[in-house]
Amino acid sequence: MASVLITGGTVVNSDSAIRADVLVRDGIIVGLGQNQGWTADQVIDASGKYVMPGGIDVHTHLEYPIDGFTTRTADDFHTGTVAAAHGGTTTIVDFVKKAPGKSLYDTYLERRDTAAEKSVIDFGLHAIVPPREQQPDVLDDLRRLVPEGATSWKFFMAYPGTQMVDDGELLEGIELAVEHGVLPMVHAENGHMVARETRRLIDDGRTDESFHATAHGHDSEAEAVHRAIVLADSVNSPIYVVHVSSADAAAEISRARAAGSKAWGETCPQYLVVAYEDYAELGEKAAAYVCSPPIRERSNQAGLWNALVTGALSTVATDHAGFCLHQPDDLPPQKMRSPGYFPKVPNGVPGVEDRLMVVWETGVAAGRMDPCKFVELMSTRPAKLFGMYPKKGIVAVGADADLVVWDAEAEHVISAGTSHLRTDYNLYEGMKVSGKPTQVLSRGDLLVDDGVFSGSPGRGSFLNRGKPVFF
Amino acid sequence: MASVLITGGTVVNSDSAIRADVLVRDGIIVGLGQNQGWTADQVIDASGKYVMPGGIDVHTHLEYPIDGFTTRTADDFHTGTVAAAHGGTTTIVDFVKKAPGKSLYDTYLERRDTAAEKSVIDFGLHAIVPPREQQPDVLDDLRRLVPEGATSWKFFMAYPGTQMVDDGELLEGIELAVEHGVLPMVHAENGHMVARETRRLIDDGRTDESFHATAHGHDSEAEAVHRAIVLADSVNSPIYVVHVSSADAAAEISRARAAGSKAWGETCPQYLVVAYEDYAELGEKAAAYVCSPPIRERSNQAGLWNALVTGALSTVATDHAGFCLHQPDDLPPQKMRSPGYFPKVPNGVPGVEDRLMVVWETGVAAGRMDPCKFVELMSTRPAKLFGMYPKKGIVAVGADADLVVWDAEAEHVISAGTSHLRTDYNLYEGMKVSGKPTQVLSRGDLLVDDGVFSGSPGRGSFLNRGKPVFF
Amino acid sequence: MASVLITGGTVVNSDSAIRADVLVRDGIIVGLGQNQGWTADQVIDASGKYVMPGGIDVHTHLEYPIDGFTTRTADDFHTGTVAAAHGGTTTIVDFVKKAPGKSLYDTYLERRDTAAEKSVIDFGLHAIVPPREQQPDVLDDLRRLVPEGATSWKFFMAYPGTQMVDDGELLEGIELAVEHGVLPMVHAENGHMVARETRRLIDDGRTDESFHATAHGHDSEAEAVHRAIVLADSVNSPIYVVHVSSADAAAEISRARAAGSKAWGETCPQYLVVAYEDYAELGEKAAAYVCSPPIRERSNQAGLWNALVTGALSTVATDHAGFCLHQPDDLPPQKMRSPGYFPKVPNGVPGVEDRLMVVWETGVAAGRMDPCKFVELMSTRPAKLFGMYPKKGIVAVGADADLVVWDAEAEHVISAGTSHLRTDYNLYEGMKVSGKPTQVLSRGDLLVDDGVFSGSPGRGSFLNRGKPVFF
Amino acid sequence: MASVLITGGTVVNSDSAIRADVLVRDGIIVGLGQNQGWTADQVIDASGKYVMPGGIDVHTHLEYPIDGFTTRTADDFHTGTVAAAHGGTTTIVDFVKKAPGKSLYDTYLERRDTAAEKSVIDFGLHAIVPPREQQPDVLDDLRRLVPEGATSWKFFMAYPGTQMVDDGELLEGIELAVEHGVLPMVHAENGHMVARETRRLIDDGRTDESFHATAHGHDSEAEAVHRAIVLADSVNSPIYVVHVSSADAAAEISRARAAGSKAWGETCPQYLVVAYEDYAELGEKAAAYVCSPPIRERSNQAGLWNALVTGALSTVATDHAGFCLHQPDDLPPQKMRSPGYFPKVPNGVPGVEDRLMVVWETGVAAGRMDPCKFVELMSTRPAKLFGMYPKKGIVAVGADADLVVWDAEAEHVISAGTSHLRTDYNLYEGMKVSGKPTQVLSRGDLLVDDGVFSGSPGRGSFLNRGKPVFF
Repeated sequence: MASVLITGGTVVNSDSAIRADVLVRDGIIVGLGQNQGWTADQVIDASGKYVMPGGIDVHTHLEYPIDGFTTRTADDFHTGTVAAAHGGTTTIVDFVKKAPGKSLYDTYLERRDTAAEKSVIDFGLHAIVPPREQQPDVLDDLRRLVPEGATSWKFFMAYPGTQMVDDGELLEGIELAVEHGVLPMVHAENGHMVARETRRLIDDGRTDESFHATAHGHDSEAEAVHRAIVLADSVNSPIYVVHVSSADAAAEISRARAAGSKAWGETCPQYLVVAYEDYAELGEKAAAYVCSPPIRERSNQAGLWNALVTGALSTVATDHAGFCLHQPDDLPPQKMRSPGYFPKVPNGVPGVEDRLMVVWETGVAAGRMDPCKFVELMSTRPAKLFGMYPKKGIVAVGADADLVVWDAEAEHVISAGTSHLRTDYNLYEGMKVSGKPTQVLSRGDLLVDDGVFSGSPGRGSFLNRGKPVFF
Repeated sequence: MASVLITGGTVVNSDSAIRADVLVRDGIIVGLGQNQGWTADQVIDASGKYVMPGGIDVHTHLEYPIDGFTTRTADDFHTGTVAAAHGGTTTIVDFVKKAPGKSLYDTYLERRDTAAEKSVIDFGLHAIVPPREQQPDVLDDLRRLVPEGATSWKFFMAYPGTQMVDDGELLEGIELAVEHGVLPMVHAENGHMVARETRRLIDDGRTDESFHATAHGHDSEAEAVHRAIVLADSVNSPIYVVHVSSADAAAEISRARAAGSKAWGETCPQYLVVAYEDYAELGEKAAAYVCSPPIRERSNQAGLWNALVTGALSTVATDHAGFCLHQPDDLPPQKMRSPGYFPKVPNGVPGVEDRLMVVWETGVAAGRMDPCKFVELMSTRPAKLFGMYPKKGIVAVGADADLVVWDAEAEHVISAGTSHLRTDYNLYEGMKVSGKPTQVLSRGDLLVDDGVFSGSPGRGSFLNRGKPVFF
Repeated sequence: MASVLITGGTVVNSDSAIRADVLVRDGIIVGLGQNQGWTADQVIDASGKYVMPGGIDVHTHLEYPIDGFTTRTADDFHTGTVAAAHGGTTTIVDFVKKAPGKSLYDTYLERRDTAAEKSVIDFGLHAIVPPREQQPDVLDDLRRLVPEGATSWKFFMAYPGTQMVDDGELLEGIELAVEHGVLPMVHAENGHMVARETRRLIDDGRTDESFHATAHGHDSEAEAVHRAIVLADSVNSPIYVVHVSSADAAAEISRARAAGSKAWGETCPQYLVVAYEDYAELGEKAAAYVCSPPIRERSNQAGLWNALVTGALSTVATDHAGFCLHQPDDLPPQKMRSPGYFPKVPNGVPGVEDRLMVVWETGVAAGRMDPCKFVELMSTRPAKLFGMYPKKGIVAVGADADLVVWDAEAEHVISAGTSHLRTDYNLYEGMKVSGKPTQVLSRGDLLVDDGVFSGSPGRGSFLNRGKPVFF
Repeated sequence: MASVLITGGTVVNSDSAIRADVLVRDGIIVGLGQNQGWTADQVIDASGKYVMPGGIDVHTHLEYPIDGFTTRTADDFHTGTVAAAHGGTTTIVDFVKKAPGKSLYDTYLERRDTAAEKSVIDFGLHAIVPPREQQPDVLDDLRRLVPEGATSWKFFMAYPGTQMVDDGELLEGIELAVEHGVLPMVHAENGHMVARETRRLIDDGRTDESFHATAHGHDSEAEAVHRAIVLADSVNSPIYVVHVSSADAAAEISRARAAGSKAWGETCPQYLVVAYEDYAELGEKAAAYVCSPPIRERSNQAGLWNALVTGALSTVATDHAGFCLHQPDDLPPQKMRSPGYFPKVPNGVPGVEDRLMVVWETGVAAGRMDPCKFVELMSTRPAKLFGMYPKKGIVAVGADADLVVWDAEAEHVISAGTSHLRTDYNLYEGMKVSGKPTQVLSRGDLLVDDGVFSGSPGRGSFLNRGKPVFF
């Protein structure tokens, strides 16, 4: 492999922003220096720009099976990772859900192969732990999956009857996780509360798409977060709460952390930037915004931003699960398959391509955080928590050369029309951002150069992730 | 100047610990690399050791005047900074208290000169804001002191009648600070509550040294912290609380930060490691432990450690103010000048030499934190908050080569007998620590090499500090 | 019926203590007055004594079936209510648990008949809601039980596999309760957490009786209380938490009430007065103290007392469930049936006779509360919450003449030997109390006069209770 | 004196509402009964009505001196107490502020005489403790005032330079209070914060009347409440916070009470019912609403109501301090003396006549509380806290016959035009209320009968109040 030299930029890590040249050899950063007289096969001029570690999105659902594996999300591991790379994201961690009639272990290996064939950036996979009744020996599978790179397991406290585990299963799973150095993750909504409210709304005939948000109350999310932390504390385990959408839920994490709990929270751009008021009056089109937990009131956003800034929330991922408004050629109807009836709308929104730009614009450009905090939320902390650090998530000697050259002056308008995803709408349609990636490198390969993508399917590698790092 | 190369070590910053060589030229770090074939005038082998940014102690009182400037603490800027260097600390920030009959401004310039003549490491100076009645035009002086490097001002909420300012003065001072990008600091104890309790103890004849702790209750500290934060919030200012000793006070900071306040807290090794129970029965010898706020019950320590780990407290400084048990040759009696009568015992304990070793032992070696967090508390965060970053507080290209080579395997017994301070006792006497500095560099100069000090008085430079950095 | 006049006493209600004569006619209080020249068939001189409403114990388990209805608690409705009367309690509310093979409704009517035949004081019955799988149509039964006097329903969040309902069932039950003006009650412990800890202890061979307390952690109780309140809040229902044993759990109620939740809590004398330390070293004899939630550390008691005084907890009941240490003649072995193996020890402790005296001694005599607060906790608030007010729980014109003449000067030593219960031990054995009932009246009948009981089985009436009163 | 019998009503006390006749002899209640065959000189038919203890307003300022005693509030003790009686209030407690050139003690005795000559209902007087510099020996006066009935002392944390005491004076005062069984009261606003904000507004030219509310922030009130409670806790004293206006301040009391503090709070009808939005746009007329603390945003009201219902706030008084919009004949200009310049507007609003009707309408009629809670807030709790119980504040045998017959069906429109006060405006102008007093008795005298007043100046008696009762 060749060497690459990035000159003149400001290298941003989570704790510093300094002027330095970056020397890459064989895909690895081997030097940071000033006036070193370095040369290289390829030289990228980053003058006036930032050089940051590539974005890491630890919550995506590409070609993700739903409805009993009868259909799936719109983008596959190829189109999805190409779009991610365009947006400056050089690593994703996706999920494996047990397939009907197969073990979790087998499903995991198969999905890993599928992703490896198509992905253009490096990727990892979380394992989703099914209820015991779906696979009685699932704990054995979980043990076997650790050396296969599944060092993070997700549990659902929502969706009773399909994916929800009860407190006993959750507790047993967390215990096994802590024993193996695995990070337990929870989708924290009290499934019974949501189910009860959904029934009530159906009984009242209030099934329009926007009522999805009514069914998923702040209280059901905050309660589940509280409970998950108590359970984790009881076995002295860390716990990672995915897609925190409610400021009340974030407050539970904040309170617990202050009391010494090892609780971590993730939020998503859609919760920070989009609001219930944006779709409440859209009728059927509100289906485009349906995800769980739901996109909440605008008054809720301040609490989430504050939680990010004060450390109650530690990462921003996307929960990318793209479905089209118009039926795709190769798939059944998606977002619009049951107009006027929210319980049937597939849950999920796209976002893997937009994450960095949207959060830079509303976070850094808006003065809520500086570039260092941005890097921490978007790359460093995800890498640490999910066992990829310091290989990923930092611009440092010895790390993978997953790098983004970021031009904070460049302007861009976010639009489904110019995105690289298959989804036919964008939550941030028309948002003007100043700040975007001009070059994106994955292990030293220049994947994106001024909007032009180079890289073939399968060049991305599976990440056999290690244990989480909590400092 | 010459070049220095530190090879084979693990470079520790607040967010990473990586294997890299460090190349220094003209006192500045110019390269971090692996296998670069670098050479230098001086090569230090750090194999098996950590390379960390030098310690920064932002709270010292060297040759510090007390009793209306009639006497002072035991160590001067020479002996004090030599001791600091031996312990791995390469920067201190001391205080300037207005002298009787002089303006704050003039006192500041004089003390700066004194320190510059004697100091062997770089140093800065905070300004202490006297009550208005002592200098009616003090706000003018404060404005003039900003360009002179006094970008942090300390206010006393304790000591009514001498140093205490009332809420009106404090608020006005904070407002001026925020206007000038200055960080306001508070000694947070409700002086009236302490005075009332002191009177009560005197009335009851309970004046033994250990009653000093009784006079300074948790409640008086927590109340003052709460109030200081409310005042700062009201003018949208950050606030830095020095020497937080009570877990209740730390909890106030934690609560406020979670609600969005820009509150920062410092604690000291003596509060983390020493306990009231250690001196309660010592009689007159308890004078050695008298400082304000006091060293509290052992049960209080867990809350402070938790606050450090969870981020409610952000720095560990020493509040180093050394007084001798036996009368020094050149000074009046110190700690023992009023046996059995705590109100007259000079307040303060030594610690500038021991800080890194004590916190490494009880923090890192004891498993409470990793080396990165240690660096953050001891160096990075102090540098950021007090306007010295990224010149100080980080091992990065472009930064000053203030470096400590730390041998985590080396054993050492802390003792007044082997310390380099003038004080004749040590709070940590006999503590066995594993982990100590083997080489200490200040701007590339090898000040300490395996316990041997080189460096003449005055080589330390005054730091004309800039604005605080809060990320 | 005849008239009764109680003269010269201090009439204590929850909001006042005044000198007044009390005139009773036909079992009803018809006059409170001074110098009215009243006469009556029977005159009781209460000079120097208090006249209070009779005690109401809303949590008893007399002849209570356990182990699938194969055995039961030691005292039946006759001996149990005689003992209650001796202690100044004139009303109890017991529980109905669905019998195997019978509906809840049928079990309720049968148990009501049994109690009516034996009881010497008035009584009510709560219904316990079984898991749906034990009776699919139980909601229909609950509706039919309201007009039969079951205006309070208890749900178990503990005991998975036997009595525990999941959050969905609990939520549905609370909804039905609020719809019918019924007060939902919860046994709040997270059953899964307790089960997990129990398994761990068994695996570790730690099955001695005192480990029962280890299995039932503060966290599992506090979590369940938190969750129960969230669920109740979500359907705008009040919720009553029985036998709060942990100060952490009480703090959850306190926090919720301050935020507007209609949460109410009950504690028991054993949690206020007895401590883990009292039985931790007793070996098998610790079985005498086994109840759920467990009797906790002494350091926990202050929080409960504070919660009582500040209103976070609103009632003191007993959870009386008496089992003998020595095998009774007519029943299988009880407390000692599985020495050294806590999971098999029948849960429960006696207390219905001692409640008033123990709480008077440790509450009123100890200066923690005054007689008015005592009456509120012991009689008025229970009467209000459980639909018996103002017929019970107050000394007022129109109320039932359930009265206790209380001599605060009389001394008494609590002992199993002098009690009127069948149980052969007493948690408060040897406790000297000053303050005991000298006369106890039930609807005007002088049941107990200086320790002599008069009254035949069946004179007690079933209380067809109405809706709760929350002011 | 004659006897009075009130028949057929529902007697409401703080813990009960029962049907009973009330027999009064010589101004004292001597009997409560049913079917007693009682006769009396005067019989009042209360069928279909409530019989409640007369209202007690513990916070009034009648003929209250301001501006260095150069002028005063509009109503004197005669017109003010006649208005109070019309509204159902039968007791007030007013304040004594030290007059310039006189001792507090002498001022108190003089004002007591003045009030005794004019008042038509019973009254008490609180003492206001001036800053030490205004009367160095004021503690001596306070001691002498206890046997004169001043068993409650008020301290100002606001108004630096005139009435504000510093924390040292406050602490010393509270200590003296607790020593003498006196209830310390605080006007809790951080005077320095208000002064700073006022200066800023003046500097910015924002002096319109509505900016008064801006100057008195929620934070300054909440901070002072927090601090007052810490100070009181430190000497184990209760503390009573007058006129709590901010929900944030109420939350401080709630938090403290839950933690065991003996903190009590009062609010006023204007804070519960009127809002900033009601006067923000009124220009100069907003002067009518100026009081301190200010009438706050409508969104603040819910927190206050919740605090009342949950017990964080314990009383509703008026802080009645009436000033006229148009200049009175006998006094200088009042509310309009400095149009457009809020710092000169005299602080205070009228309300002593409207209190019961306004709170009944918005509290009881609106479903927020029942009549018992209303009686507790309006009469019972004030009587207990201010040493008048059980002589006042209860309908019970032995109590003063201060009684209100209340017709919950009667309708009334509140208006300055029909009020009996001298003030020429009413904050509740036009409010329709259902519920008003039809008969008002003071010690058995029928003062108001269907709107007709009988009673001569001076019939009201000074109340030599005893110690507070806290149950």
